[in-house]
Amino acid sequence: MTQPLVLTLACADRPGITAQVTGFLFERGANILDAQQFNDRAANGGEDRFFMRVVFDPGSAAADDLRAGFAGLADSFGMEWKMAREDRPRRTLILVSKFDHCLVDLLYRYRTGELPIEIVGIVSNHPREAAIRVDIGAIPFHHIPVTPETKPQAEAAFRALADETDAELVVLARYMQVFSDEQSAHFAGRCINIHHSFLPGFKGAKPYHQAHARGVKIIGATAHFVTADLDEGPIIHQDVERITHADSPEDLVRKGRDIERRVLAEAVRLFAAERVLMNGNRTVVFRG
Amino acid sequence: MTQPLVLTLACADRPGITAQVTGFLFERGANILDAQQFNDRAANGGEDRFFMRVVFDPGSAAADDLRAGFAGLADSFGMEWKMAREDRPRRTLILVSKFDHCLVDLLYRYRTGELPIEIVGIVSNHPREAAIRVDIGAIPFHHIPVTPETKPQAEAAFRALADETDAELVVLARYMQVFSDEQSAHFAGRCINIHHSFLPGFKGAKPYHQAHARGVKIIGATAHFVTADLDEGPIIHQDVERITHADSPEDLVRKGRDIERRVLAEAVRLFAAERVLMNGNRTVVFRG
Amino acid sequence: MTQPLVLTLACADRPGITAQVTGFLFERGANILDAQQFNDRAANGGEDRFFMRVVFDPGSAAADDLRAGFAGLADSFGMEWKMAREDRPRRTLILVSKFDHCLVDLLYRYRTGELPIEIVGIVSNHPREAAIRVDIGAIPFHHIPVTPETKPQAEAAFRALADETDAELVVLARYMQVFSDEQSAHFAGRCINIHHSFLPGFKGAKPYHQAHARGVKIIGATAHFVTADLDEGPIIHQDVERITHADSPEDLVRKGRDIERRVLAEAVRLFAAERVLMNGNRTVVFRG
Amino acid sequence: MTQPLVLTLACADRPGITAQVTGFLFERGANILDAQQFNDRAANGGEDRFFMRVVFDPGSAAADDLRAGFAGLADSFGMEWKMAREDRPRRTLILVSKFDHCLVDLLYRYRTGELPIEIVGIVSNHPREAAIRVDIGAIPFHHIPVTPETKPQAEAAFRALADETDAELVVLARYMQVFSDEQSAHFAGRCINIHHSFLPGFKGAKPYHQAHARGVKIIGATAHFVTADLDEGPIIHQDVERITHADSPEDLVRKGRDIERRVLAEAVRLFAAERVLMNGNRTVVFRG
Repeated sequence: MTQPLVLTLACADRPGITAQVTGFLFERGANILDAQQFNDRAANGGEDRFFMRVVFDPGSAAADDLRAGFAGLADSFGMEWKMAREDRPRRTLILVSKFDHCLVDLLYRYRTGELPIEIVGIVSNHPREAAIRVDIGAIPFHHIPVTPETKPQAEAAFRALADETDAELVVLARYMQVFSDEQSAHFAGRCINIHHSFLPGFKGAKPYHQAHARGVKIIGATAHFVTADLDEGPIIHQDVERITHADSPEDLVRKGRDIERRVLAEAVRLFAAERVLMNGNRTVVFRG
Repeated sequence: MTQPLVLTLACADRPGITAQVTGFLFERGANILDAQQFNDRAANGGEDRFFMRVVFDPGSAAADDLRAGFAGLADSFGMEWKMAREDRPRRTLILVSKFDHCLVDLLYRYRTGELPIEIVGIVSNHPREAAIRVDIGAIPFHHIPVTPETKPQAEAAFRALADETDAELVVLARYMQVFSDEQSAHFAGRCINIHHSFLPGFKGAKPYHQAHARGVKIIGATAHFVTADLDEGPIIHQDVERITHADSPEDLVRKGRDIERRVLAEAVRLFAAERVLMNGNRTVVFRG
Repeated sequence: MTQPLVLTLACADRPGITAQVTGFLFERGANILDAQQFNDRAANGGEDRFFMRVVFDPGSAAADDLRAGFAGLADSFGMEWKMAREDRPRRTLILVSKFDHCLVDLLYRYRTGELPIEIVGIVSNHPREAAIRVDIGAIPFHHIPVTPETKPQAEAAFRALADETDAELVVLARYMQVFSDEQSAHFAGRCINIHHSFLPGFKGAKPYHQAHARGVKIIGATAHFVTADLDEGPIIHQDVERITHADSPEDLVRKGRDIERRVLAEAVRLFAAERVLMNGNRTVVFRG
Repeated sequence: MTQPLVLTLACADRPGITAQVTGFLFERGANILDAQQFNDRAANGGEDRFFMRVVFDPGSAAADDLRAGFAGLADSFGMEWKMAREDRPRRTLILVSKFDHCLVDLLYRYRTGELPIEIVGIVSNHPREAAIRVDIGAIPFHHIPVTPETKPQAEAAFRALADETDAELVVLARYMQVFSDEQSAHFAGRCINIHHSFLPGFKGAKPYHQAHARGVKIIGATAHFVTADLDEGPIIHQDVERITHADSPEDLVRKGRDIERRVLAEAVRLFAAERVLMNGNRTVVFRG
């Protein structure tokens, strides 16, 4: 079998999209291995939206020819679309500050081959000794300090790094600096943050302490796309755990680390497998 | 919009199935509303199997014409298939013995319109007073006693009832009689049982007492198709709950009632929505 | 064995409480069957708080004598406390509006003996036909209409009913009227509401529609004590369920009904078993 | 505050135990910080069993004096008991074969101070290069090869190592060698294994492949004490995750790694905090 390709697309809903997309592939000798679709009929009072993910064996067809051919069909439907090799590891930059549990977890999964990513760099606003207490092997580390005064330059430096490294994905793995609106817009749709609460509960700082003070019986974590609107970006994945009155804020922080790392890793896995599509301020997530 | 139809199919995997099925519908003016597929590449060392569920608006095409037309395509692929109105309530017979929590729950969901079924009868091996302590309204009740000696006749009586009522689905809602091999074969693929354990753990009798004796920390329930092989039928749905050392067997029975009723109701909902396809001794479940 | 008693207490933490309480019981020939305690060392920057629940067989001691004797010890520690027969069903009033899934569930559990309560009345702001579609047997029904103008009188009527019926617990089972501050204060610590969201997310009206609009991946429900501060009362129990992009607001409402009824039933069970103690705006929940 | 001590005990149930234990501590000036108890009234048809865990500030009393004094009380009740400093890290040996996800996880939690253990050695039946792909710092590594012929000597070598290192806890972190009956007996009550299935389902080899073949909809992992009866030891902790028909055996292995590591880490945390007591072939787990 040739290496499969994965096609993702989104457009206004119209009759015939599925048939035409699958027909296009069939005519060119491609064999569909997996296909999922979603018609969002509730899209904010506006028009219906259609989302699709198709994995296919291109057979003898060249990927570039398929892309060129599909462009015409895509234009006629006004699609946003992407056709990429399924097995291509997505080039990823990870940003951290001082908590390294999410980074350590991503590194472990990366090394076991569990995550279809290639980590092209680790960036911190703190020096390496302060930010990372584990072996990162040959992965380049970049210290980009951020102060209120130097924030624009720091963000420009990071954008330059993302360009140089051809980063397709930026992961904020408990990175404690807020992106400016400009930076958020620049990385729209390809920057994932982990927030240490079950959003929309407990936005802002110290969510575990907020959760303890409020006396909730379940805590959680949320992986979401970064947008200019802090803690309001489209949610990709969430998970929770039960707690009791006997859990101190420190217990919540400890339990939360487990939730955060598995929620972030799952969001990265889903994104890297082209399973996450933006739908306004929400997401469509095609699970296996 | 015309009432949507739902097409489900299973066959040996071959290139082009998706394209031909969706193309068939497109050419007849149907509009696909939802489509899911699954290629089972691990099917017991044998050949790959393909499964699909498509919901579509038939537009101006008549359902019978679509069925007639599809038959040819289906034959060429050797498909098992079904095309039915999505909104048609599936005709359902419920069997109970003396525990009525699952029955009560199904009745409530049926009355709220949450389950796309029509309950065409309730059957028990006990007299009505013993079996049911709630109002069943106009639903016919049938007392079919079973003894070791009369089991063949009792099963024949039930088969006759299923024929008369055109039952598409038979639900064993904590029915304490074991179907004979013949009866299991007769209702193959349309008879759902709820087993009060997280199978394959604790088969057989008194699973909660077994679970307590073994000291497990989580209990569960399993909805599965009935087969001649007791407690070994294809699993449709399972759920679990955490327990502690402080839970007595009676506590497990109480907690288990909650799990059983929601697992069975979900299995019935999935089946009635044509979301469950048999795959040998396993199932493919296309969730929304 | 004599019928066990359950002692619950809360006070400022001081050395020796556990020893003195258990010693008091031991000297009077009582045998402790279960005991749990919690020292809250994080109580809002103030003093530490101590909470305890003891179930004991009083042996030959009379409950009234034990209460009289314990009062002195309790005073010396400044305890809030209660000593009651464990098996005494708590007298309960249930309020409903038009959604009856929580009521139906409580009634079923009540009839099976699963909840240690006695339902002494059902109250609705709607007439019986509109509020209840199930058989409530001999349980008295009270229609207390509420309009903005008559709210004070309606609340007074309900207070009178609670007095007459000696209600120890008031359950708002999807009751759509907000209690006034006065009414909330009157029933402080013995009125449980079910909110159909995972608080503190989605306070206020139509939480499932809010959840859908925000695109969360998990929804939940919250049982809490009613206070003057709407949706801010001490949380007793919460539970959640995973959802996907494919769930419409109506799907969330359907899934939410299941969560709501089991969360409310569990909160009622815990309260009726004297397992819930207030701790400021939070709760201590001693599970089995 | 002096460093707290933790007292755990188990004995046949008799009136007065709680009162006498807490009275003993009170008289010596100790202050109880936390206390939990459990009366097992269902103990295998035999006599009732009593279990208790008390954390207390000894005040000015010396731990050794308290132990000496308590011995008399303990004898009179026939108690198995232990009184130890709560903050003392439990000396732990970890055994691994070739899968290192559990080891890596334990190491990370150990280094962050999340687990109250001191890792006094890592042992593998494979050479270091084969067994471990992460930095283990100053932790001693021991290669103890095992063949059918050398198993007795290998087990003796491990027992010697456990003696030398004063190991209180032995963790089988996906160690692929089965302990002999003798070895199991030697480490009874202080050796924890992680089994990669939700026991009692799928005992033996390749449980994820078994789970896939059976078509279950939920998989899990089980941490249990090692006994001579393989996969039958007292269960300490279990957790599960939902799967679908689309998950291949390899997906189950990947998802299972997450479950295994968090279940094992939690079992180690509970054990090291003296929260796990043996109760025949079951456990009593006093959570916080």
